[in-house]
Amino acid sequence: MEKFNALYAQSGGVTSVINASACGVIEAARENPNQIGTVYAARNGIIGALTEDLIDTSLESAADIAALRHTPAGAFGSCRHKLGAIEKHRRQYERLVEVFSAHNIRYFFYNGGGDSQDTAHKVSLISQELGYPITCIGIPKTVDNDLPFTDNSPGFGSVAKYVAVSIREAGLDVASMALTSTKVFVMEVMGRHAGWIAAAGGLSAEQEGESPHIILFPEIPLNVDKFLQRVEECVRKYGFCSIVASEGIKNADGQFVSEQGLVDAFGHKQLGGVAPIIAKLIKDKLGYKYHWALADYLQRAARHIASKTDVEQAYAVGRAAVELALSGKNAIMPIIVRNPGSTYSWSIGEAPLEKVANVEQKMPRHYMTEDGFHITQACRDYLLPLIQGEDYPPFKNGLPQYVKLKNTAVPKKLTTTFEIA
Amino acid sequence: MEKFNALYAQSGGVTSVINASACGVIEAARENPNQIGTVYAARNGIIGALTEDLIDTSLESAADIAALRHTPAGAFGSCRHKLGAIEKHRRQYERLVEVFSAHNIRYFFYNGGGDSQDTAHKVSLISQELGYPITCIGIPKTVDNDLPFTDNSPGFGSVAKYVAVSIREAGLDVASMALTSTKVFVMEVMGRHAGWIAAAGGLSAEQEGESPHIILFPEIPLNVDKFLQRVEECVRKYGFCSIVASEGIKNADGQFVSEQGLVDAFGHKQLGGVAPIIAKLIKDKLGYKYHWALADYLQRAARHIASKTDVEQAYAVGRAAVELALSGKNAIMPIIVRNPGSTYSWSIGEAPLEKVANVEQKMPRHYMTEDGFHITQACRDYLLPLIQGEDYPPFKNGLPQYVKLKNTAVPKKLTTTFEIA
Repeated sequence: MEKFNALYAQSGGVTSVINASACGVIEAARENPNQIGTVYAARNGIIGALTEDLIDTSLESAADIAALRHTPAGAFGSCRHKLGAIEKHRRQYERLVEVFSAHNIRYFFYNGGGDSQDTAHKVSLISQELGYPITCIGIPKTVDNDLPFTDNSPGFGSVAKYVAVSIREAGLDVASMALTSTKVFVMEVMGRHAGWIAAAGGLSAEQEGESPHIILFPEIPLNVDKFLQRVEECVRKYGFCSIVASEGIKNADGQFVSEQGLVDAFGHKQLGGVAPIIAKLIKDKLGYKYHWALADYLQRAARHIASKTDVEQAYAVGRAAVELALSGKNAIMPIIVRNPGSTYSWSIGEAPLEKVANVEQKMPRHYMTEDGFHITQACRDYLLPLIQGEDYPPFKNGLPQYVKLKNTAVPKKLTTTFEIA
Repeated sequence: MEKFNALYAQSGGVTSVINASACGVIEAARENPNQIGTVYAARNGIIGALTEDLIDTSLESAADIAALRHTPAGAFGSCRHKLGAIEKHRRQYERLVEVFSAHNIRYFFYNGGGDSQDTAHKVSLISQELGYPITCIGIPKTVDNDLPFTDNSPGFGSVAKYVAVSIREAGLDVASMALTSTKVFVMEVMGRHAGWIAAAGGLSAEQEGESPHIILFPEIPLNVDKFLQRVEECVRKYGFCSIVASEGIKNADGQFVSEQGLVDAFGHKQLGGVAPIIAKLIKDKLGYKYHWALADYLQRAARHIASKTDVEQAYAVGRAAVELALSGKNAIMPIIVRNPGSTYSWSIGEAPLEKVANVEQKMPRHYMTEDGFHITQACRDYLLPLIQGEDYPPFKNGLPQYVKLKNTAVPKKLTTTFEIA
């Protein structure tokens, strides 16, 4: 088998375990030196590929590559840049071929969510459209857990664990103070279109009365009256009310609550965040003292409380991408398969990129309770395995030690440049 | 020595380690059964003491009491209720004597911050003013780190660690995406009057360019022009700008930025939070895409990432309170003493409640850099020992196992009730 180089790139919003996938790719490639020469990484995702801004990962030590497994965010940089259709933006694809060809790249590993798998799919078309032989494998990643085919998306389990742990802890805090102080706590979490992350908060409530009492999903239009009634009920019954709200909740007209500024009579756009709007609505209508939190990037970067299962799966899909490529597979994405049986176990399967691209997997209705304010046992059964196990990073001087790679640039071979539109 | 009962109460905002102090009190008392009978806990702080709403901690198992050490928030409930001066509110103090007397209570342990030590001090005056012999010991607690005499306040080290870890993680996230997406990240932290918590974020930046790049302290009035200039400089130099902002930052006129709504031309009160105001100011003036987070209670409840040093100190001051009481001390608060020497070590000292009450210890100016946007080496030397060590709670099913006590009410002995003003 002739030896070719590989290009790995990270795409879209980063997660606390996307670097574990990078680690899996690079380690698996290094174990196959007869087939894969150098693994290059594109700096800032597909943009680095287009601008010939490549990083030579072979200059990183084995220890530093291993440390990627416990380092959050995107070690090579990521971006939100979607390639247009090949018919309309042929020049972009020709440019990729020029870069691939100049650096003897025949393997392309693209690590991202739905939009990114669309890009990976388009790159996989290069072989037939432009006649350059490229093996293209997508690697799943997204905190939103909305990729199809795969049982769950690497990156989600860790944010799920962070949210469940955080709302459990904050719930205890509020409960302690509720008699004379804060009675309502709202924690806003990510998930603009799918309520998976909000749902994960529900795992914290194992017993009647435990936090969170209410979950607001983007899939279920906010019924303000029913919601306020439920808040009041919780305060009466439990002394306080703890709420997890998805950033993407909508009102009955399908508008985002965060954009609409539910309670602002002047129609001024709020400075962002659904939590303060929900909290103020409660204050105005029910008079309860409130606090709210907006975890934002903290939730998807929280490697210190990552799910061990998630880390293992992220690493495994990275390795699998290389192994599948070397076995002659193309234009696919390795996926997590939940094995049948009452005890959770998983294996790696595969799905065609063509079918993965641009499909969003939302929460099924039966994962939410009939009143729409919490998760069902079926949802719990699905989610719970994904947050199992802790995988603490090493600490030094009281702080987690995350690796910073050298990220040495590969000398350019092309004399032409490329402008990103 | 005759045997009397003890009353323990939690006061003010809770922390992730105040229950470790409770654990220290109860365990030390149980080791001295000849001197201390039952440890009662007041439900919801001093309110429980006034309303004779007491909890019998002797009904809790040794294992459950031990588990308090790793359980955040206030296991017996807390409150924000300050006792008025004894001359003006004599009835409150007489009521306390009735409750103490009815339950044979001669030891009172009050666990809280500055306001609470004021209450403890007033209770300690009961002996001389009302002739009831009560031994009153304050136990320090506050995330704000603003108690005097003690080198640091139990509760602070853990929130410090949380903030430093979180801004390190979020900083990596922003750095990955900065080329095409978010360039500025603002994390708002607690600290209305003192910048200790914001300062702790600075520990994350060990090398030039690391997150956070800018810290906004309540002690230093916000100079908008200098601030924006620094933000622009960071984006130019590092590709992004990561900011830790204290909730209590003020403008040049001494107004809270959060209340002033810095950039809202309509003069409408914002829904809360300094982070969105700072972020929008940057967007309006410099055009950078931003994200912001507001950790709120998540930071002070985050027992999962507590500082081991903090947990040990919180436990130690709880034990010390009992030991000091049994050795005949009164009207004091055990404090943390930083021992001399180049290696950090600490021991327990004591301070008179009279002098502790109502004194706020702010950040010394030389702990902040000359430009006011970061911490100095002296500050780093002070802070770093306080976040040392991890002390993970036990996990089950992927979630931290926090104890829920039985909190059985002690049958009331008084026939009178008491209305809280």
